[in-house]
Amino acid sequence: MRIGIIGAGEVGLTYARPWAAAGHEVVLCDLKPSTAATAFAEQSGQDIRASVAELAPDCDVVVSCVFGTVSLVVAEQALAHMARDTLYVDMTTADPALIRTAADSAAQRGIGYVDVAILGAIALTHAKTNLLGAGTGIDRALTLFSGIDAPLKPVEEGAAGDAAALKILRSVFTKGLEALTIECFMAAEKQGVSEKLHDALSDIDQASLRDFLGALIRTHVLHAPRRLKEVEEAERQLLAADMPVAVLPGVKALFKRTADQIAVQPIDSASPTLPQAFEWLFKVNDVSR
Amino acid sequence: MRIGIIGAGEVGLTYARPWAAAGHEVVLCDLKPSTAATAFAEQSGQDIRASVAELAPDCDVVVSCVFGTVSLVVAEQALAHMARDTLYVDMTTADPALIRTAADSAAQRGIGYVDVAILGAIALTHAKTNLLGAGTGIDRALTLFSGIDAPLKPVEEGAAGDAAALKILRSVFTKGLEALTIECFMAAEKQGVSEKLHDALSDIDQASLRDFLGALIRTHVLHAPRRLKEVEEAERQLLAADMPVAVLPGVKALFKRTADQIAVQPIDSASPTLPQAFEWLFKVNDVSR
Repeated sequence: MRIGIIGAGEVGLTYARPWAAAGHEVVLCDLKPSTAATAFAEQSGQDIRASVAELAPDCDVVVSCVFGTVSLVVAEQALAHMARDTLYVDMTTADPALIRTAADSAAQRGIGYVDVAILGAIALTHAKTNLLGAGTGIDRALTLFSGIDAPLKPVEEGAAGDAAALKILRSVFTKGLEALTIECFMAAEKQGVSEKLHDALSDIDQASLRDFLGALIRTHVLHAPRRLKEVEEAERQLLAADMPVAVLPGVKALFKRTADQIAVQPIDSASPTLPQAFEWLFKVNDVSR
Repeated sequence: MRIGIIGAGEVGLTYARPWAAAGHEVVLCDLKPSTAATAFAEQSGQDIRASVAELAPDCDVVVSCVFGTVSLVVAEQALAHMARDTLYVDMTTADPALIRTAADSAAQRGIGYVDVAILGAIALTHAKTNLLGAGTGIDRALTLFSGIDAPLKPVEEGAAGDAAALKILRSVFTKGLEALTIECFMAAEKQGVSEKLHDALSDIDQASLRDFLGALIRTHVLHAPRRLKEVEEAERQLLAADMPVAVLPGVKALFKRTADQIAVQPIDSASPTLPQAFEWLFKVNDVSR
């Protein structure tokens, strides 16, 4: 298989090396190749192409490893030069809307397209980093990545763009949790109660995360006003203890927003279901589906 | 047992009623008794005392259910009038420092003291609400609360103030998680990927919460600069999708702060332990232990 890789940076080379080792013909494309990229190209006896137009025409697979901001431009250039029934792998984790546009373009040309989102740190786990993929080319991509033992997981019934959307939303959650953990456990550590706080949080572990988060959403639309008071007290005490506070003001703002919305148009249920809670949240926040 | 309750509001009456039903003599103290408090007092054949000085002298146990802001003033008044070997139960969840001061005062007078933090909504779960307690009077408090099936859990090897501190820190974490969940899952729901996002977060469920949070702290001090870029991208995309954003700016501020600190004085380890990570966080944030 002839694999063209656009963007010979850390991500591109991370997959170029094992694909070449597995017997594929790997060709790089980069305007300013790094020393590592040049070394790889010399070793594999291939020139580094300076333009997508020089790379794309004779590749069975084109893998885009450029920055998300140029993902659509690069995709359109490559797709214009690729043959029918080839495969385009987009590893840019760009804006899902851009990815969907590129996937439509690929479909019109009869080219397979897969959106592959990187769910970890390539710098740390290299080709073993978890990947999430979606799109018409997912089956071919699974073969390609499983050939080098790279853990690509398909989004069930997902279309191109869904992998990128999920990566970004996962990032909102995990980075938010990380910041919250730092803020909360620095204060616990200062008071010498980190271990005891883990005990006091152990009920979260007992439920499934899905059920726990669902319960938070369902009760938030009822109890935000009372909980706002607890957030205010918590913030007051972190500040009184001279702890740096970054996350809690935003948490307070969100509870305040919901509390104000409840005051004006409370939800019409004493025990809302998850769909009812979302329906109310979308209505009061003027968010269209 | 003669139990005096200072503050005959919702919390006070929630415990007054079952203690009276269990055969204790319950006396209330409130400057402005509610209708409910007056009804309780009439039924139990006791006057409502207007001052702590009138209540405290002949009680075996005094339970403070006032607002946290006056917890220390009320405790000092009551302790001054209580006999040795009696018990003071502080249910105010006040600033832990104030509680520790009151506990010292009780110790000097030979009075048992217990700090009882309310870990839920009395309005919803009444006397079944989870309680956390710490202090010299914990054993007597356990007897008192278990007599009415109120779930009081002791803080292992905890001193007065630890229960309040843990309640506040637990509140920082759970309220933060609630706000984050609302922000993240509203965006997921809008894109129709809530269920898939739960799948993409399922690795958090597989680890223990303690281990997962520990890993976040240990890696935050190394990878905050790279993760900051992901947070910025996530925020950009939530805003582009017209989602209301409240929590993420604070999350970004915390990652920015750590990234700046890493640029100036990076941690001296390629794989810091949890104590090393905390040590570095305390140093760069000028927080004393």
